[in-house]
Parts: sequence; C-alpha cells; structure tokens
Amino acid sequence: MSLEKNEKLELTRHSLSHVMAAAVLKLYPKAKFAIGPAVDNGFYYDLDFAKEKLSDSDLAKIEEEMKAIIKANLPFEKSELPVAKALAREKKSGQIYKLELIQDLKKQGDASTGSAQVKTVSYYKLGEFEDLCRGPHLKSSGQIQLGSFKLEKLAGAYWRGDEKNKMLTRIYGLAFSTRQELENYLKMIVEAEKRDHRKLGKELEIFTFSDEIGAGLPIWLPKGAILREELEKLAKEKETELGYQRVSTPLITKEDLFYKSGHLPHYKESMYSPMEIDGEKYYLKPMNCPFHHTIYASKPRSYRELPLKLAEYGMCHRYEKSGELQGLFRVRAMMMNDAHIYVRPDQVKAEIKEVIELHEYYYKLFGVKTIKYRLSKHDPKDLGGKYVNLPKAWEANEQILREVLQELKADFYEAENEAAFYGPKIDINIYSVIGKEYTLGTIQLDFAQPQKFNLTYIDKDGKDKMPYCIHRAPLSVHERFIGFLIEHYAGAFPVWLSPVQVKIVSVGATHVEFCKKLAKEFIENNIRVEVDETDETVGNKIRKAVAEKVPYMLVVGDREMNSDKLAVRDRGEKTTREIAKREFMEEVKEKIKNR
Amino acid sequence: MSLEKNEKLELTRHSLSHVMAAAVLKLYPKAKFAIGPAVDNGFYYDLDFAKEKLSDSDLAKIEEEMKAIIKANLPFEKSELPVAKALAREKKSGQIYKLELIQDLKKQGDASTGSAQVKTVSYYKLGEFEDLCRGPHLKSSGQIQLGSFKLEKLAGAYWRGDEKNKMLTRIYGLAFSTRQELENYLKMIVEAEKRDHRKLGKELEIFTFSDEIGAGLPIWLPKGAILREELEKLAKEKETELGYQRVSTPLITKEDLFYKSGHLPHYKESMYSPMEIDGEKYYLKPMNCPFHHTIYASKPRSYRELPLKLAEYGMCHRYEKSGELQGLFRVRAMMMNDAHIYVRPDQVKAEIKEVIELHEYYYKLFGVKTIKYRLSKHDPKDLGGKYVNLPKAWEANEQILREVLQELKADFYEAENEAAFYGPKIDINIYSVIGKEYTLGTIQLDFAQPQKFNLTYIDKDGKDKMPYCIHRAPLSVHERFIGFLIEHYAGAFPVWLSPVQVKIVSVGATHVEFCKKLAKEFIENNIRVEVDETDETVGNKIRKAVAEKVPYMLVVGDREMNSDKLAVRDRGEKTTREIAKREFMEEVKEKIKNR
Repeated sequence: MSLEKNEKLELTRHSLSHVMAAAVLKLYPKAKFAIGPAVDNGFYYDLDFAKEKLSDSDLAKIEEEMKAIIKANLPFEKSELPVAKALAREKKSGQIYKLELIQDLKKQGDASTGSAQVKTVSYYKLGEFEDLCRGPHLKSSGQIQLGSFKLEKLAGAYWRGDEKNKMLTRIYGLAFSTRQELENYLKMIVEAEKRDHRKLGKELEIFTFSDEIGAGLPIWLPKGAILREELEKLAKEKETELGYQRVSTPLITKEDLFYKSGHLPHYKESMYSPMEIDGEKYYLKPMNCPFHHTIYASKPRSYRELPLKLAEYGMCHRYEKSGELQGLFRVRAMMMNDAHIYVRPDQVKAEIKEVIELHEYYYKLFGVKTIKYRLSKHDPKDLGGKYVNLPKAWEANEQILREVLQELKADFYEAENEAAFYGPKIDINIYSVIGKEYTLGTIQLDFAQPQKFNLTYIDKDGKDKMPYCIHRAPLSVHERFIGFLIEHYAGAFPVWLSPVQVKIVSVGATHVEFCKKLAKEFIENNIRVEVDETDETVGNKIRKAVAEKVPYMLVVGDREMNSDKLAVRDRGEKTTREIAKREFMEEVKEKIKNR
Repeated sequence: MSLEKNEKLELTRHSLSHVMAAAVLKLYPKAKFAIGPAVDNGFYYDLDFAKEKLSDSDLAKIEEEMKAIIKANLPFEKSELPVAKALAREKKSGQIYKLELIQDLKKQGDASTGSAQVKTVSYYKLGEFEDLCRGPHLKSSGQIQLGSFKLEKLAGAYWRGDEKNKMLTRIYGLAFSTRQELENYLKMIVEAEKRDHRKLGKELEIFTFSDEIGAGLPIWLPKGAILREELEKLAKEKETELGYQRVSTPLITKEDLFYKSGHLPHYKESMYSPMEIDGEKYYLKPMNCPFHHTIYASKPRSYRELPLKLAEYGMCHRYEKSGELQGLFRVRAMMMNDAHIYVRPDQVKAEIKEVIELHEYYYKLFGVKTIKYRLSKHDPKDLGGKYVNLPKAWEANEQILREVLQELKADFYEAENEAAFYGPKIDINIYSVIGKEYTLGTIQLDFAQPQKFNLTYIDKDGKDKMPYCIHRAPLSVHERFIGFLIEHYAGAFPVWLSPVQVKIVSVGATHVEFCKKLAKEFIENNIRVEVDETDETVGNKIRKAVAEKVPYMLVVGDREMNSDKLAVRDRGEKTTREIAKREFMEEVKEKIKNR
C-alpha cells in the first residue's frame, strides 16, 4: 500500500481503466462491466465475458486497441443523468452490474445523508464507449504516455468480493507516469520474484508451514529462530539503553479485559473464537496494550516515573481470512516488537522524537535508504463520530507530530481522515534495496485508551492527571520484518544476523575430526558455525555453501590441517584468502559486535 | 510429593491415624469415621462430628488421649470379616461411610479381578476401637516415639472429594521418625512461610495476577521479566555449548496434530476447549513435543545429524482446576525450558548422562545441596496394557538409565510401575536451602512417540531406523522454577540474577542529577541500576532498599559527589565500604559474568 497519493498519476490510472473498458467493448461487444478502479501500481477492471474465456494473447489485443484509443486522443466527456433514467438505460443495455451499482447508490444516498436523495449519477464518454463512473478523468486519452502502461494479468474476482456471487474476469494493468518508471517497476518485479521470501525461506530453511498445524502459523526452523533471536537481542539492547522495561503478560484473558479496551466488539472479527474455562470466556490476545495498561494501573504512579516504557515481545494472534494469508507477510500468529510509552503531556514531543530516531537507527542499520512518513490526521467533520471529540487536543497533538517530523527533516506528507480513533499517528513506509515498498511501522499517539483504563499519575502539584500513551513497534512483527529482511538481503544476511556465520567444509573423511575441533573453537568465541562432513565431493559441498549464502566458508584439507592459517572464501568471492586463525576470529567477532 | 518411600515411617504414620481415631472415639463416641491415610509428612483422618464443631483446643485434647494410648502400648490386632457380616456390622453401628466403602469394595472386587469376589474385609482393633482398615500397622502403639508427632490443623473435606457430598472434618497430623525430625520440620515450615513466593513475589514486584485477566495467568512485572530472561539466557548459553538448536513453533494447532500425538483424547482434560477457525478446531498447545516431531519429520535425516537437539522456550497452556492453582507453583500458562533430543540407540547413554549433568550444573549454580533421583520403571505385569509391549526394550533402557545413575554416583532408588507409557524416566527432587522439597525435573526416554510420528533416520547401512527421543526441561517451567528460586533465596538473588543489581540513593535533591549520571555509567556497563530520587528521608530510602534485597546500595551525598570513590553498602551489611568507582564496576561485572 502506497502512503503517498500522486493525484495526477491516480487520474491517469483511473482513466486507463476507462480506456481499457472502451477497448474491451470494441473487441467483445457483449461484455458486461462491473468496476474499474485505480490501484497501487496501476488499475483493473472487473468484467463479465459470459462464457468466453480470455487468455494472455487476448490481453495483447486489448492493449493494441487501447493504444489506438490513446493515439486518437479522444476526450473524456462527463454528463449527469437522473437516477431513474440511468436505471432505465442500464436495464435496457443489460449492464446488470451497473444497474445494481446505481440501485445501491440510491439506497446509500438515503442512509448517509439522512433525507437527501441521490438525484443524478455521472457518466463518462470516451468515443463510442460511455460508462457509469464517478470520475474524475484526464481531459483526453492523448494525455496518457504510450509505453507507460502494460496489461499485466488476468484473474478471477467475485462480484463484490462475495464468493456467493458470480466470478468475474479481472484484467490488471500496470501504469506509471513514464515509460522509464514502468520499466524500472518491471525490472524490480523480476528481481523481487527471485527474492521472494517464501521461496528463499524454504531454500534457506528459515521457516516452514504445516497443513497438520494450520495455515498462517509459521514454524521457525533453527535458522529462522536465530534471526528472531538476533532481532530481539538488538531490540533489547536498544530499548535497555533508552530506559524501556520488559514485561511479560498472558496470551489469553477473560473477555472482560477486551470489553474494557473496546476490542470486543470493535475488533472481534480479527479475534479468534473464545475458549471456555470454568464457565467463562477467554480470548487469545490480538494486541498487548490492554495488558500493559493493566500493569500501569497495578500501582499508583508518580510524575517522576514518567515516561514509563513497557516493552514486550508478546505473541499476538489475529484472524486473517485464509485467502489473505501470504507467507510471512500475512500470518495469524505474530511476535511483536511491542512497547507502550506512558508520558506526561510535556514529554510527548521528546518521546515521539526518540521513537522516530529509533526507527531510523534500525532502518539505517539494515541499509534502508528510503523512508517515507505520513502524518495521519483526524477529520474535523467527524469529531464525535469516528474521532474522539476533543478538537483542541487533536490540533495540538497533530502539531506536535508535525513539528517533530519537521525538526527531524523527515520526508513526510499529511493526510486527513487517516488517524486512529484515539489520536493521530505517523505511518512509515520503507523501500528495500531493489525499491520494493514495505509498510512496517506506525507510531500512534493515544489520548483515549488511558481514559478507558482510568490511568493516572500524581503530578508535582499532588493532583491526579492522565498520561498519554505512545504505541510503537519499530521492528514490526518479526514475521513480517524477517520477510522483509529475506527479500531485502536476498537471503545474504549481514554477518551478525547470519544463521550460519562460518561454514567449514571438510575435503575428506580424514579432515572431519579437525573440522569439528575447529568448529568448537568458533563456538567458544560465540561464532555460529556449521561443518559439512558429508561424503559428497568438495565441489558439491562448496556449491551448497554458496547457495546457503554463508558469509564465510573455510575449506579444510591437508594443507590447512598442517598450518595455523585458514583458507577463507568470502561470500560473493570465487577465490580464497589466507589468514591466521586468531586474526580471522577477531575479524568475525568485530563484525558481529559492530553489526 | 516425596519420591522416596520410607516403609517404616509410612507404617507409623498410618498407625497414628488409627491411634487418632481411637482417641477421637473416646472423646466423641458419636463420631463417624471415613478414611485415615498416611500422607506426606504425616497423616489425616476424615470424620463426621455431626453438628459438633471442633476448635484447636480440641486438638490438644485428642493429642493427649493419643499419648495415653501410646503409653498404654496397645497391640494392633487384625481380623478378617466376611463382607456380609461387615456390612451388617457397620449398618448397625451407623458408620455410614465405612458401609459405603465396603459396598464399593464389593463392586470394585468384581471389576478388577474379573469374576473374583471380595469375600472378606480386614479390621484392626486397638483397645476398644476397631476399624475397617486395609492395614498394615505397627505391632503395637508403643512403637511410636512420643514427641515425634503433632496434630497440626483442622480442615474441611468433602466426602470422596466431591462437593455434592457432605463436608467432613479433616484432622491433620504431622509425624516423623524422631522428635528431632519433627522439630526440624516445624522450624522449616516457619521459615518457609516467611519465604513464601506469593508473599515475596508481591513485595518485590516480581509478578502479579489480575481478576480481569484470569486465575493462574501470571503477569510478569519488569523485575520478574528480568528473572525469566536471565534464566533463558543461562539456558541458551549452556544449550548452545551443548549443540542444541533453538526452534519456535506455533502456540495453536489444528486438532489433527494432537490426535496423532495421542494428546486427544488422552490428555484432553488438561487442555483448553477448542477455538474454531474456518470451520476447523484449533487447540492451545499443552506441550511442545508434537511440534518438534513435526520439525524432525520436515526433511530426511541422516545418522550423522543425530543427536539432534531441538530446544524451545514454548509457552504451554494447561487447564488446572481453580482450586488447585497455587501462586507460581500451579499455573495455567507456563514457559517451559523444553527440548527434545533425537538419538540413535548407541547414543542414548551418553546423552542421558549429559542431560543429568546439565541438571546438576544448574542445581549447583543455584546452591542446591540435595538432589534425589528416582528411576521410574515399568511393571512387567502391565506390558501391553499401561506399557508398550516391548519387554526387552524396557529392560535394556532401564538398565541404561540405571548405569548412568550409578556411574554418576547419584543418590537414587528404583520404583516399579512409575514409568511413562512410552518409556522409563528419571524423576528429580531438589531441596531448598531450608530443606523444603521441590519436584522440578523429569527426564524421559521415549521409544513410542517417534513411532507414532513415523520418525526415521538413514543409518550408515542405508536403512531407515527409528530414533529415540529424550524429553527434558532442567529449568522446569519458569513459573515454577522462579517460585522455587524466590523461596530458596528468600528474594535475595545472586548478583547476576538480581533484577536491580545496584541501587543508588540520593541524599538530597541536589544529588539527583549526579545519581542519574552515575546510573547511566552502570547501564553502559550492562549493570542493572535504579535510582531512588524521591523526597523521602535517606533513612527511609535505605530501609526500602534493604527490604528490596538489592545486592549493592550506593548512598550519594556531597562527599560522594566530590570524590571518585563510592560508598557501597553490601546486602546484609550495616556499614559501607569505600571503593573506587572503576574498581567497583569491575567487581560487579565479574560477579555477573561468573554467576
């Protein structure tokens, strides 16, 4: 999901879906049209081709037709039609989906604006094609750059996403501002496929899934467990330095707590069904916050104790539809690098700054070059509805977040009506080394939950006051973050993070004992090592170690056994270098220590 | 639960319950008798006093009467009575509980021995008192040492433990072999109460429970979380050294896995009710083994890979009745120091030895002086029933465990019919510094589960063979182990384990900044530090730090601010010592490093 909206590009993408529909109509006059929105990286249109089954070669034909429409530079002409006339029109032409959309629009109009009726609907004409469409569109098809778009693929999609409805044909298109951008994107996709964490995760034995256990529940194999633990170690070090305190809270709780927090019923769809214990309902936790609030409230707090930073690696469970599960990116069980920072009003700014800096510290450590921030604000029109009705607090807190982002010279933009109901937030997107976008972070400034949990502190003046709560998880959930890291590094992790840091390859059976002794020395120096002592050929063993992307490989034969020097092959190199054992160990230890 | 059975002592305890009943009958001729077994540390008798309500002063009276019976040195005289006569007799005397017991015995007899009928029941006479009793008893009451027992307390107990039945009066007695042993025990109890982990855990802010979250679900406060993490760090260090590999497996799973493992339905009572996800049943895991077996089976294994040691800090959930929950000792959510070691037959002995040595390493580290082992064997009479029908394997594996215990010169005894259904085990009891007994460990040699999961390895000869699986958790579940540690150390943890290692007490407001700067230096040296910067008097602050049992306290006033020396007050001392800052830091770091 892209945070930033490029309005011109969005207009182009939406217009392209209209152009595509016009092209389809020319080739398939009986096609029925459903919806055709602009989406990330392009657009799509859902169509009903009745019994006709399209293939990729049809896409090329449609694309050709689209080019012709663009070259013809046809204008997009808007017109308004009274609802009754529009209904009659769609009925007559047999466009059943459009008909349904107008009927719904009529109903919705009643509901959303009270008594107000939707009186007219808009149509856009492009040459002979005229389609019900909210718009807006470009002025004319000629404004689209030839070569900046491409029909990507066919897919099935249920009408209105409901599997009880008919399955329509969805045609996806990619579209960018320029031909160059499209080409870059296509290159990135090819590269991204090679780096797909599901593929690499399996090859590198990082994680697996089991049908017997369940979908969306990753099993971390030894190498994956190391990645998790190294990340947790990193987080703990940084958090200790910043004065966080670790806690550990139950994974299940009586429903009462989630009623108090508002998760039930508001978040119920993302929660698992309850278990019954001694006649009471217990839920697996989807979030840690209510537990941390409970700890905060477990004793009186003084202003001196704030900021109080409660951190937890708490395993959360959230229900995701099985169709939406996707490797490590969408899972049902997640280990969150969670913390809640309880602050006095005068501490908010400094703490938000510290949190952003922590995010940036991590991203820099992982070699992320591009970070984009979005200041997600409330909508003044929806105060008291979607947003807590405290207009002054909203303004003030949004201003604090704005100032922090400005002072940090962050690349950010602002978006209305994107806040959490309890306060504004900063959403963060990062880009991997090949330019793929990942949404991994959000920082929320919460001034509603502390009220629900009646959290207070005794201020200097002896009065009870309410703290704010900052929610943050810079290393995200580890499932998703490790998914990102696998793709970002293409599995070639930096030394400190590598599950196997040194791989020792024995040339023959006579060298195995020596290799094991050597391995022990590495272990004693806290270096992760693996010995390949199989009977395969040295060539095979080296190829395997290369495929495993270990940072260092040591091939041990007679020569190495009779010398105190090691033959080290660095990752990515085809030759070895000679180095004294002690020196090499120091080199590796230094790399681990400095990350 | 005591592992070792002292038959003479058990006889004495059982005889004492008979003596007590005789004494009761003298004082309360209308009392009805239920059951009076020997138990850990003594005996009890459940009685029905109708409307009479006993108080502690009555216990003294009964105890006096018991002493008279002992001094009279009355013989225990056994007799056998045909069932019909026994029934008539109890009916006549109105001993309704005995009546019910004989009726049940009659029925049970039929069931357990097939067609065989229970024809007679045994009675024991002691003076005028004669009671239905299986026996055996001492020869005469004079064999009991005066002063070696004591009536302890009164309690309520439902007849047959069923709350639908009548509540009876249970009189508990303590009994040991000698007067000295009783006195030691009484002293230990007084000391143990002071060390009760529920009391200290609250005072030292280690853990808490919340009604809103649920019974048996500990919430680890920051200081408790440190204890957990230090233990986990210790385990990880040792396990890495020994070649264990960490994994991390889901907390929930489809029911299929637990059917395969046999947990469903065999272990169902200890499991939570299922959750439904996408129409399938999922359970919270009560154990990690089936998940580790899944990882083992996730790829072909070679004999070279064995022993394969899969370790996990996996959170397990088990249902315990709310009445049985007890602080950290009986909980519903537990973090287990779990591992499963897959071994070839020729590796069993060495691996079991390593596991025992690991237990002993930990126990020694924690200053445990007494460890007792029990070799829990199968019962040859129950092969094919309670135990897998592989007589030779049982003999051989029990012999391996026996040899290991012998070679390690362990204090152990053997017990028949105490094995797991899948193999023999070694049960371990340890004793805290005040002599309180804790059951914290069990090592199981499993030759049945690998079969259920079809686990194999390719042996040297190219053939598929089945590994054994060793189950072990030397640091137990952390909830229970920390409960033990709190009581063992009375909250005064060794430096490396102490949640706060150094407490800095500021004399006045002018010293706070300096204290905070000093604290930062400790943090940079990975020393856990806390500053008491409140406005209370220095005396109060010192008293608080003493109550918190921190190993080192630094009081910082003008003198310390103007010197590079620190005034250190060691735990347990009433005076301070002067020491250079750098030197002190090195001292603490050394203590932490060497544990």
